[in-house]
Amino acid sequence: MKDLKGALVFAQSGGPTSVINASAAGVFAAGLASDKITEVYGAAHGIKGVLDENFYDISKEDAKELELLKYTPSSAMGSVRYKLKDASVDDTDYKRILEVFKKYNVRYFFYNGGNDSMDTCNKISKYLQTSGYDCNVIGVPKTIDNDLFGTDHCPGFASAAKYIATTISEISLDAKVYDTPMVCVIECMGRNAGWLTAAAKLACINGEGPDLIYLPEIDFDLDKFVEDVKKVCAKNNNKCIVAVSEGIHNKEGKLICELVSEGAKDSFGHTQLGGVATTLAQMLKEKTGFKTRGIELSLMQRCGQHLASKVDVEETFTAGKKAVEAAVAGETDRMVCYERKAGDKYEIEYKLLPLELAANTEKQVPLEWIINDGTDISDEFIKYALPLIQGDAKAPLENGLPRFAKLKKELVK
Amino acid sequence: MKDLKGALVFAQSGGPTSVINASAAGVFAAGLASDKITEVYGAAHGIKGVLDENFYDISKEDAKELELLKYTPSSAMGSVRYKLKDASVDDTDYKRILEVFKKYNVRYFFYNGGNDSMDTCNKISKYLQTSGYDCNVIGVPKTIDNDLFGTDHCPGFASAAKYIATTISEISLDAKVYDTPMVCVIECMGRNAGWLTAAAKLACINGEGPDLIYLPEIDFDLDKFVEDVKKVCAKNNNKCIVAVSEGIHNKEGKLICELVSEGAKDSFGHTQLGGVATTLAQMLKEKTGFKTRGIELSLMQRCGQHLASKVDVEETFTAGKKAVEAAVAGETDRMVCYERKAGDKYEIEYKLLPLELAANTEKQVPLEWIINDGTDISDEFIKYALPLIQGDAKAPLENGLPRFAKLKKELVK
Repeated sequence: MKDLKGALVFAQSGGPTSVINASAAGVFAAGLASDKITEVYGAAHGIKGVLDENFYDISKEDAKELELLKYTPSSAMGSVRYKLKDASVDDTDYKRILEVFKKYNVRYFFYNGGNDSMDTCNKISKYLQTSGYDCNVIGVPKTIDNDLFGTDHCPGFASAAKYIATTISEISLDAKVYDTPMVCVIECMGRNAGWLTAAAKLACINGEGPDLIYLPEIDFDLDKFVEDVKKVCAKNNNKCIVAVSEGIHNKEGKLICELVSEGAKDSFGHTQLGGVATTLAQMLKEKTGFKTRGIELSLMQRCGQHLASKVDVEETFTAGKKAVEAAVAGETDRMVCYERKAGDKYEIEYKLLPLELAANTEKQVPLEWIINDGTDISDEFIKYALPLIQGDAKAPLENGLPRFAKLKKELVK
Repeated sequence: MKDLKGALVFAQSGGPTSVINASAAGVFAAGLASDKITEVYGAAHGIKGVLDENFYDISKEDAKELELLKYTPSSAMGSVRYKLKDASVDDTDYKRILEVFKKYNVRYFFYNGGNDSMDTCNKISKYLQTSGYDCNVIGVPKTIDNDLFGTDHCPGFASAAKYIATTISEISLDAKVYDTPMVCVIECMGRNAGWLTAAAKLACINGEGPDLIYLPEIDFDLDKFVEDVKKVCAKNNNKCIVAVSEGIHNKEGKLICELVSEGAKDSFGHTQLGGVATTLAQMLKEKTGFKTRGIELSLMQRCGQHLASKVDVEETFTAGKKAVEAAVAGETDRMVCYERKAGDKYEIEYKLLPLELAANTEKQVPLEWIINDGTDISDEFIKYALPLIQGDAKAPLENGLPRFAKLKKELVK
């Protein structure tokens, strides 16, 4: 292990979360404190910021604003969706990254994201190793989808889960207010993994919540769905609250939102828009005659910082710090992950996982946690998820509204 | 003024709010404390509960749960949309109401709702007066729409405004995260009055918020809208956040959302709204080639109790208490309203307004507060609305999630 001294680059990639900047705050705090790190840079818009030499000089920022990053949703450095080609196919980008790293003497590189971002991080790590350039590369996990392999849970998931559970508690009360039939379908994010939709189940703990929950781990059957809803309505005064994942699909793998809306055109001739909630609500209205409503939790579930979990914010911040500590201690080619300790009391340890294991592997909800013929979630999930959503960590208020970080973002010339 | 002694009936009507039950808590607390009130009843589902003799005995409820009502969204008694015919046309319902009131010796009647509910309340009040039955009738205002005449603002508006401003602050950050064009259209409730959409402007105070705001007070022109968005994008790195009211319409009065779907009408003959954001987002995508997203704040804006304003909760609770105090003091045929005191410090007085003035009169946003060619909101609105959203008043947490009131709702036999 060499004693590396040089600049740090941190970049964010993929969909933001309400706590993603807590990792940034952790990386920056540890980076600014380390005597091995000569400069602390944030790359603008992920790996694009490296390719374009767009680096923000974090040492120019006010300490108060950096602290506020812990409570500021959305990627403060800007994000990107940019897939690096295989270096064996086209190494243009890699050569450019190496050139930029050499120019700025970048010896510590941190990439903050989910599956695709860990793939990018892994590819860069491997290329740098092959090229013999000393740079410690650590992945900092982030995804509300909670689908990264090798970690008990992912930074960002808990806050989105808390948003979903809280909001569905409230919607459940609101949607049942009239003495008339009402079916409300609520759509949560998650294309291939149903963790977020499963979080709707947490709303049931205090007495409110969905009657039916559908995850993409299980094939979705439209006819069975209508029957499921009718059964709930029959015993529940014609009220039914449904939580569905955006990624539910039939047994042929076709997404339900595509299936039902195919051919359905509005009066402009456009294909009927809207996600799966609107689609299912419309279909149920036709099949039952009941009043229905589709609700999409949309961006709010991933940016609802005012409902951030304190556990999540603290862990996410620490994950950023641990990444820097590990890199400075000589670790490279790893992703920070969480390991839950055994026992009743919730506690985690921060570990390191080889990057190639994290890259492009999706972790789904265990099938045995999906119960009642694919319409409900078991207590094992509640036991798993409930400790994660504890505590409040919302941004300080100014004028009764959240005061998020305001960074100068001075570009390095 | 006669010294009335008898039962109290409280009922909720129309769309719920996140603080509507604070009024219920106020009415119940004052009712249970008054020695002129022999029984405290909540009618199930508004006036239908009276017609059907479905009364909950509030004295059977736990004090702790009644206190939690202050922090419980959605109408705890159940709501209704039921339009009473003119008594001169058909007095069947009125006769029935009188019969039930006599049977239960109801001498205090409180109806909690917005414009249509105040119309119901006014009709009942007038009928009871004409029939010579002594019963003091007081309207308790409620509407997130903030469109009741004769009151500085309406219980429920501030909390919905706080939800909208907070959420749009967060969405603004999230939607601008990529280095690619993005137009995000966010839809707020409000058919004829743009108060809630105007509240989006509050998000700008701390630095985030919409670039364009469209209220139903001003005719909406699709071509101008596209040009407005293009102008913002041109100077703003191809990013634009738009807040629109569900009720925006063209100069012929045609609702923009009706351009895509012929909505079903609700029982008051209102067109069912929704889908403006999605519609406009889709249209913008076609006209600009930019990525766009439509977001509907849907039920969340009216049930988001976790973002309730403390000012709103306290005022709404007090409005309920004041209603009972006024009725017990002999007032009838009035609605409780708020009068803002002059001066820089925000303070209100509780007043009484003749019911017929409150019924069916809609108060819109003053046209002079809508600026920049119908795309922005003036500082006068901020000065008006900002004091209302101050302070937090969210439900106590259990398991990290809101613990709402759980009522027994024992029916009187």
